[in-house]
Amino acid sequence: MASPPTPLRAPEHQVAGHQAAEGQLGPLVDGAGLFFKPLQGDGRGDDEVSFYTLVSSLPSSSSFFPSFHGTRLLPASDGSGPHPHLALEDLVAEFSNPAIVDIKIGSRTWYPQASEDYIRKCFEKDQRTTSASLGFRISGIQIRDGSGAWKPDRGEIRRFSPRDVRIALRRFVSSDPRSDPDRALAAAVYGGADGVLAKLGELKRWFEEQTLFHFNSVSVLVVYERDEGATLGKGKVKVKLVDFAHVVEGKGVIDHNFLGGLCSLIRFISDVLTGLDENCI
Amino acid sequence: MASPPTPLRAPEHQVAGHQAAEGQLGPLVDGAGLFFKPLQGDGRGDDEVSFYTLVSSLPSSSSFFPSFHGTRLLPASDGSGPHPHLALEDLVAEFSNPAIVDIKIGSRTWYPQASEDYIRKCFEKDQRTTSASLGFRISGIQIRDGSGAWKPDRGEIRRFSPRDVRIALRRFVSSDPRSDPDRALAAAVYGGADGVLAKLGELKRWFEEQTLFHFNSVSVLVVYERDEGATLGKGKVKVKLVDFAHVVEGKGVIDHNFLGGLCSLIRFISDVLTGLDENCI
Repeated sequence: MASPPTPLRAPEHQVAGHQAAEGQLGPLVDGAGLFFKPLQGDGRGDDEVSFYTLVSSLPSSSSFFPSFHGTRLLPASDGSGPHPHLALEDLVAEFSNPAIVDIKIGSRTWYPQASEDYIRKCFEKDQRTTSASLGFRISGIQIRDGSGAWKPDRGEIRRFSPRDVRIALRRFVSSDPRSDPDRALAAAVYGGADGVLAKLGELKRWFEEQTLFHFNSVSVLVVYERDEGATLGKGKVKVKLVDFAHVVEGKGVIDHNFLGGLCSLIRFISDVLTGLDENCI
Repeated sequence: MASPPTPLRAPEHQVAGHQAAEGQLGPLVDGAGLFFKPLQGDGRGDDEVSFYTLVSSLPSSSSFFPSFHGTRLLPASDGSGPHPHLALEDLVAEFSNPAIVDIKIGSRTWYPQASEDYIRKCFEKDQRTTSASLGFRISGIQIRDGSGAWKPDRGEIRRFSPRDVRIALRRFVSSDPRSDPDRALAAAVYGGADGVLAKLGELKRWFEEQTLFHFNSVSVLVVYERDEGATLGKGKVKVKLVDFAHVVEGKGVIDHNFLGGLCSLIRFISDVLTGLDENCI
């Protein structure tokens, strides 16, 4: 007997990107492990489908990406009728209280083939945010706790200084995300053989080799389960790349823009783990 | 008895930067191991002195830089009278037939504090050259041989495409630099425990750690002695960083722009060594 179709809804834990809330066109989840992302027009959707098709066939790198389940024609979240969606792994489906940070990598977020106007806008935003100075910027962050939550809005996040980024990466692994960061979960989440740093290290080694793709404006999404009493819950720490609408061919050249930014992020997270960041705050 | 003062002259083997030839203000050498670089006005000269003073006191990194011997007041090469000069190691003094390539690292060559006009000019040049696409560009190259020489002029080098850069890095280690590159010296110059790749690997490890400086518009200079019959001559392969007029404080952040470009250069040189570059040419 076929199981009844699960109703689609806007994801509860989305921290960045287009939102399906308030009748906008945005992603949907089925609550059973799939995340549906509406395909964008202007060729970007097709590019993302081609990218997922290719990358999910590469064993060397498939662990860095949400698993791909083809495309589906689904009712759009804005009520405009059937719309093609990417069917992807819902990265937070198995978490009951996920702490999430979305970090856009690269000091440059535009791609060389873009229009002059698009490049200028991205260039200015990269300068205004920490992209240019740090090689990455936080695009979204969410931590919920028995005692409260921390989910700064987009405007606040866009104004993050390098110092704010350091503090956010501490708060992300602290007992009470709203007050003095104590780094109580730093060793469990950032350290260890399955922790964030180990996974970013694997990603770095792949980026030192791969010359197939340049990942413009792509984010690293970090998720972990936060149990009561601010401990790391069951289920491993997840580190995945997301948002591939601006991936272009690498043409035999490594993605030096992504790799440089990734190395900078690795250093920032190492600094939180070792407490070295206190010298910089 | 004091040795007679050695006459100063324009360096014979300079491949990039300001030239002392034709009555311009440019660097001088004494033929006995010192290279004198006229201090630039507008604060850049002072910055370079401070940088050399600090960096030559750091044991972790001093091998990456020309040794520093203070400043000297010397007659300027343009005949304008006494002018302060940096006294540096003459990197080619011990070579009789040096092959030299000057590679400016970074997809971005401007520094954030620069004027809008300066940033725009650098941005456009980075796009026109291979800086933006490869994360580095060749600024000068010279190979002399019994049978001839290859020293393309600045205009030709500025027009180098990514493919031209691959070919230049092959020709740099080939028997006859003017014709089909055979990579005859690749293993000796690029490979081995004292070769270019080993030295760039050390440099990379330093850049993954150091957060003191951001090396804007800095070059990696590679020099080796070319004996008759296109073999590697006595004296080790040299790999040094040069030109620090636009170095700025790192403020606790790694130099992701330099590191990304350096990783791309390492990949290009590895490709020449393994012959993988033939797939890309």
